[in-house]
Formats: sequence, structure tokens, C-alpha cells
Amino acid sequence: MTNRFVSLDTYDVRFPTSRALDGSDAMNPDPDYSAAYVVIRTDDGAGKAEQGEGHGFAFTIGRGNEVQTRAIEALAPYLVGRLVKEVLDDLGGLYRELVYDSQLRWLGPEKGVMHMAISAVVNALWDLKAKRAGLPLWRLLSSMPAEELVDLVDFRYLSDALTPQEALKLLRRGEDGREERIQTLLQRGYPAYATSPGWLGYDDAKLATLCREALDAGFTQIKLKVGADLEDDLRRMRIAREVCGPDVRIAVDANQRWDVGTAVDWVRALAPFDPWWVEEPTSPDDVVGHAEIARRIAPIPVATGEHVQNRVMFKQLLQLNALSFVQLDAARVAGVNENVAILLLAAKFGVPVCPHAGGVGLCELVQHLSMFDYVAVSRTMHDRVIEYVDHLHEHFTDPVRMDRGHYLAPLQPGFSSTMRAESRARYAFPDGPVWNTP
Amino acid sequence: MTNRFVSLDTYDVRFPTSRALDGSDAMNPDPDYSAAYVVIRTDDGAGKAEQGEGHGFAFTIGRGNEVQTRAIEALAPYLVGRLVKEVLDDLGGLYRELVYDSQLRWLGPEKGVMHMAISAVVNALWDLKAKRAGLPLWRLLSSMPAEELVDLVDFRYLSDALTPQEALKLLRRGEDGREERIQTLLQRGYPAYATSPGWLGYDDAKLATLCREALDAGFTQIKLKVGADLEDDLRRMRIAREVCGPDVRIAVDANQRWDVGTAVDWVRALAPFDPWWVEEPTSPDDVVGHAEIARRIAPIPVATGEHVQNRVMFKQLLQLNALSFVQLDAARVAGVNENVAILLLAAKFGVPVCPHAGGVGLCELVQHLSMFDYVAVSRTMHDRVIEYVDHLHEHFTDPVRMDRGHYLAPLQPGFSSTMRAESRARYAFPDGPVWNTP
Repeated sequence: MTNRFVSLDTYDVRFPTSRALDGSDAMNPDPDYSAAYVVIRTDDGAGKAEQGEGHGFAFTIGRGNEVQTRAIEALAPYLVGRLVKEVLDDLGGLYRELVYDSQLRWLGPEKGVMHMAISAVVNALWDLKAKRAGLPLWRLLSSMPAEELVDLVDFRYLSDALTPQEALKLLRRGEDGREERIQTLLQRGYPAYATSPGWLGYDDAKLATLCREALDAGFTQIKLKVGADLEDDLRRMRIAREVCGPDVRIAVDANQRWDVGTAVDWVRALAPFDPWWVEEPTSPDDVVGHAEIARRIAPIPVATGEHVQNRVMFKQLLQLNALSFVQLDAARVAGVNENVAILLLAAKFGVPVCPHAGGVGLCELVQHLSMFDYVAVSRTMHDRVIEYVDHLHEHFTDPVRMDRGHYLAPLQPGFSSTMRAESRARYAFPDGPVWNTP
Repeated sequence: MTNRFVSLDTYDVRFPTSRALDGSDAMNPDPDYSAAYVVIRTDDGAGKAEQGEGHGFAFTIGRGNEVQTRAIEALAPYLVGRLVKEVLDDLGGLYRELVYDSQLRWLGPEKGVMHMAISAVVNALWDLKAKRAGLPLWRLLSSMPAEELVDLVDFRYLSDALTPQEALKLLRRGEDGREERIQTLLQRGYPAYATSPGWLGYDDAKLATLCREALDAGFTQIKLKVGADLEDDLRRMRIAREVCGPDVRIAVDANQRWDVGTAVDWVRALAPFDPWWVEEPTSPDDVVGHAEIARRIAPIPVATGEHVQNRVMFKQLLQLNALSFVQLDAARVAGVNENVAILLLAAKFGVPVCPHAGGVGLCELVQHLSMFDYVAVSRTMHDRVIEYVDHLHEHFTDPVRMDRGHYLAPLQPGFSSTMRAESRARYAFPDGPVWNTP
């Protein structure tokens, strides 16, 4: 009961994914998938690191990962020396303390590097809390009473769209049948869609092959990157549609490439190939622009979220009917706590949550959030899918497990956020062996 | 012509302003005004540092200034080794290169720590360019033809509100009478308003005294911080109105303290004291919320901008009629270039620009932007004022000069952004003497 946090250690870990154009899209031609990684250590669990450490990370795509790492370090004074139990018993309080630190707040507020740093730390604390409870995070969250879940949320700036009372009502509604839904997840898992076929840097033959492989693996939805060249997009969309047939859902993703007018014209040109959704048609900051695009390309739905900086932006996108799928990201907003708020907002507006994943470890994280959403908030998997990309899972100690296009429910205690120590060392930037081999 | 950039050096400079509650407001009770300061050095002007160095900074309020400093350092590789003339001849190009670096962009995009870092570097380059031209920045900008000014702007995500053609038209309109307006500025300066009386940490007697001093100094507008306690605000507003009389404009500033409903109720309660504008009533990210507040408290106008992260957010605030005064900040968006876009957006929508200032060196910077706005864009000073706070000017080599409530036009070459070397050393964090005296 008197255990304390003893250190917050960071690691700049980068994978040289740009060498094979994995992850290439219209705005990100050569990403090196990276993690600004944090281990929060306590004086508990000597010899049993899994009980005494919380692991988390912010995902970046290379340059600047050292800035992100430095930002996480800046949060060490808020934990080191404090009582572990006190902090973990009130993660809502800790999250608000970090977000409202009056000096750090100036660097956002609630956006960009500092907010992603808070995400890494908050998620690491949830990892530790779940490990200590002996539960995978989704089950820990699913075991919490509605009142406790409401306490996790910061309702500031939300009250014109969602009040604590409404949130409580939504969560109380979700208490019925929780155990049954947990069993469903344990048996069937949660549906996924495959992004790997559609990276912009892949040629037509590779696209067709990967589409076929995705169908064979049981996926019923894939995603194509678009937005660099319309002729290319039409050709690639035709190929994908031919391979997939009419019933498989094909989403397209422009990665913020367009202005409002261009988005409308481009999507209309792609319409004959029946895109399931259009993702990130323009700046993630442009809620008014998203609303205008959504209105003009209807009934083709708009999806966005991986770069949406916080719950205030999601609130507005929902208020303006600007999006039909909420693509929350596990490590861009302030971690589990802010994502609970986003799940509740989506439920209030009746919009399905289909998380962004891929990168480094994002699949590992978001599966917990979607499963919690199903058990305690939305209570349905209808039209809900988690993005799946088959990269870099081997570097985690509890990697996602896929079965016939579904994420199998994680069973190990924690947030599945722990990277193998060997990987952390091998891909350390700039001194790890991978970065020192010509 | 073959001179090159040789280094980009950063300095973590912090002033212990929290010790006197200077700068205290409802969200920032104890700021330590700080600069993540950058000096960009070239191999030009040996012995004449003023020709060979560009100075810039991001403003923060203390903790995290080391993160901001690290972010600026991350931009060194984009300059060091390059030809000075080539870069300075195309600052639009350099700005876009920094903003669209595909890997760094992930850390925003265009917001928070990384964007403020770009601001510091872009502004330092403008400082250097103006020094080399032998002109204060406002005069350099005012001497540029409309076509060159349009080239400074990034129109991506703006085209549904402002096209390059419209911008060109606005700027061509501004070419007539430029010289006359320059002479007006040289003679009369640019009107200011005083924020110093109204910090939340000051007691009633100090408030009344400072109001009187502001009037005596020639100010016709002051500002009060509000939002922590309604009874206090009503009492302080009454005192200020009594001292100032009915004709002096009294703006109020809530520093993001309220949700939408609270903002409306609170402002209505203050209405009998005739507030000139209500500043930052809620989250700077909430354009929909600002629009709702503006609609419900009309005719009391809404002002915002110091935390508005980029031109895309300003665009939406203007599209939704959510604000009546654009309070751009010199060092939060990506420097001069993005601020030219914001000035053009404001002109397009017919909204006055009244910049945010104060902090460390922000008054020194924004005076150049408002004067350029008057000469080349808006062509009027009607209802336009620059914020003025009388702190920390003594640390700059070309401090603002005030006369009867006006900023006098800067005359020295550059962006007035150069901090005295002694100050940089004395307030260096954590090793400077100021931080080592108990």
C-alpha cells in the first residue's frame, strides 16, 4: 500500500519502415514508424516486472520522435515519488492534473506533442492498473461501475453536447448484459478491416495480390489510400473492386490531401466504385469543411479521427453531422480517459466507432477500447470494425491475435502495450544496431 | 551570395513572473513568462552580428519550455548548410517545407509544440531578412508587391473561404496610398489597449490605481481578467467602470474558463457594465461553441485568437460568424507567413485584427504585423488596437516605445525580436543566476 513510483524512463524507438514503402499514403510518402516509449517503474513487484511497471507510448512516423520523447520526460515530476495506489485509484484525477497543469497547458492546450505525451503516460498507468488487477484492460474497464467510468471523463467543454448525467444514463443502460457480451467477444472476437493491401507505394499487381490475400484471410472490408492522382485512384479502385466483388466493403482514405471543393469532386468521381467511407478528406482541424463535404457527397459517408486532437473536436464533428464513423486513436488524445469521453459522445450521437490502428502497437491498444465499447457503451458490433495492419506486431509481448478477419480478445493482464526489451534495444534511435548498419 | 547558415542555437529563458502574480488569470494562476529562444547564425557579417543573425522565439509560461526548445532544435537540419540568400528569397517555400515535412507533420499537424517551433524559426528568418534589408519588418513587408505577398501564404485548406486570386485582389487594393499610411504610422503610431490593470491576482485597490494610471497614460481601452468567480467579477467590473467612466472601452477576458452555457449566463450578468468584447469565453478549439456563444450574447462581441492553433481554425471562426475581433498571436501559428494568411482572411470577412500581446516579446513582434495590416491590407485603424502589457520590454534591444496609448512605429532594422545577451544569460533556465538564488 505504500509503494511509490520510482522512475519514468523514455526510449526513442524507430523502425525503418520507409525502406519498403510500408505505410505510404498521399501525405506520408516515407514514414519510419516510431514509438516515443515510456516505462513507469514502481518499487513494487521486485523480480516481477509485469506487476511493477506500466508501459505506454506515443506513435510518430520518425523525425521529431526525440521531441515527443522529451515531452514525455517532462511529466516525470508528476509521478515520481507519489503513492502508486493513490494515483491508480483515481486516474481521472491524474489525467485532469496533467491536462490542466497551468504552465504545460500553454503548449497546447490539449493538442499535439504535449497531449500525445499525456496519452503515453495515462495509457502506461492503465497498463499498470490492469496488470495489478490481473485483467486485460478491456475486462478491467468492463468491470467498472457506471459511476466510476463517469469519473474518468473530463466534461469541460462538452456540456453543450454531453452532460455527466447523460453519460451515466448511457453507461447504466450498458450494465445489462455485460457478461453475455464478454462471452461473445471471448468466442468470436471483434471484426477488423485490412489496410495493408492499399498503401499508395504498392504497384497494381501487389495491390491485387494483397486484396486476394485479405479476402482469403476472412476480411470483409479493406481500405485503399487515395488522393495523390485521380487516374491512379480510379484504376486502383477498379482493380480492387474487381478482385473483391460487389459485397466486400472498400473504404478510401485521402489522408487530408484535399481542400473542400477538390474532396467533393474527387469522391464523386470514385462513387461508381461504391466506396464504403471516405476517410480524412481534408484537414482534421476543419470541422466546418468536413460538414460541407459530408453534405455534398451524401450518401457516401465521411470518416475521420486519427488526427483529431481531442474530445472538443470530436464533439463538433458530431454536432455538425460531419462524420459517420468515429476513428478514435489510442495514443493521440489523452489516453484511455479521453477515449472513454469520445466513446460516450459517439454513443450519444449514435455514430459507430471504428478505431484507427496500424503504426507501432496501435492495434494492440485499440482492440481494448473497441471491446470495452461493445461491452459497456454501444452494445453492438453492427457496422463497427477495427483497422488492422499486419506490421510490427512481433515486437510486442502480447501481440494481437487475428482469426478469420477478427481480433481475438486479449487475455493477458495489461494494455498489450509492452514492447519486447530486445526490440527496444535493437531499434533504439540513433544508437541501436538497426540504425548503425549501412 | 554564397553565405550559408552555420548554426541554429536555442536558449531556454525563463522569467520568474509568478513571484508577483503578474499575468495571473482564471486559467493561468502562476505563469513564469518564458521564451524558447533561437538564434540562427550565418557566416555573413563577421563582426556585424546584427546582419548575420536572425532571432526568434516561442513564448511559453514556464514548465515545458525545455520541450519547446528541443522542438526548435529539431528544425536545425532544415537550415544549416543551406545558402542564406536562397532561403530568404523564398520564405514561403521554406515555411511550406517545414509545415509539410511528412514525418514532423504527424506531431501536429500544424498545431502545438511543433507548430510553435516553426513559428520561432520562420520569425527568426524574417528578422534576418529585415536586418539585411536595413528595414524594420513592417516596412519590409509593406514594400513587397502584392504578388510576392500572396506567395508567402499557404492556401491549402483555405480555398473554400479565400483563394489566391481573392488575396491578390485584396492586396492590390492595398497598394494605393501605402506611402501615406506609412507616414501616418511614423507620425502617430498605432493605438493600443492596456491589460496590465486587470490581472486576476491583483486586489481591488491595485486594480483602481492601475486603471487610473492607464487612463493617465492615454489608453482609451483596458482589459479585465474574469471567469473565476462571478461576484468578484461584478465587483471588479464595477470598480473599473467607476474609475474609467462610460466612454473608455473595457474588454473582459475569460481565458477559456467556461462551457458554452456558463459563458452565456456569465456574460449576460456582466452586460450592465458594457463590456467592449468577451475574450476566450471557452475552448479555443470550439468553433461551434464560439458561434453559439456569439449568437446568444449579441450584440456583445466575441474575441479570440491567442490560442487559435492555425489559419484553418481562424477560417472556421470567421465562416461561422463566431468572432468579431481576430486576436492573432505572433508566435503560436507558423510565424509571419501564416499571419499574413490570417490578416487576409480577416480582411476578406471584414473583421478587425487586434493582436494578442504581452508575455515575453510578443508586443515587440505584433506591432510589426498590425502596422503591415494597416499599410497593405485593412487600410484602417478603426476599432483596431494592439494589446499592451508593460512587462519585460527592458530585456530587448529594440523595445516597444509607447506614446499616449499608442505604439510608436519601430525604426530599427529587423523584427524587434532580439533579446539582450545579458538577459539571456541571467534568466537562463535552470542554470542562470536568477534561478539559483534562493
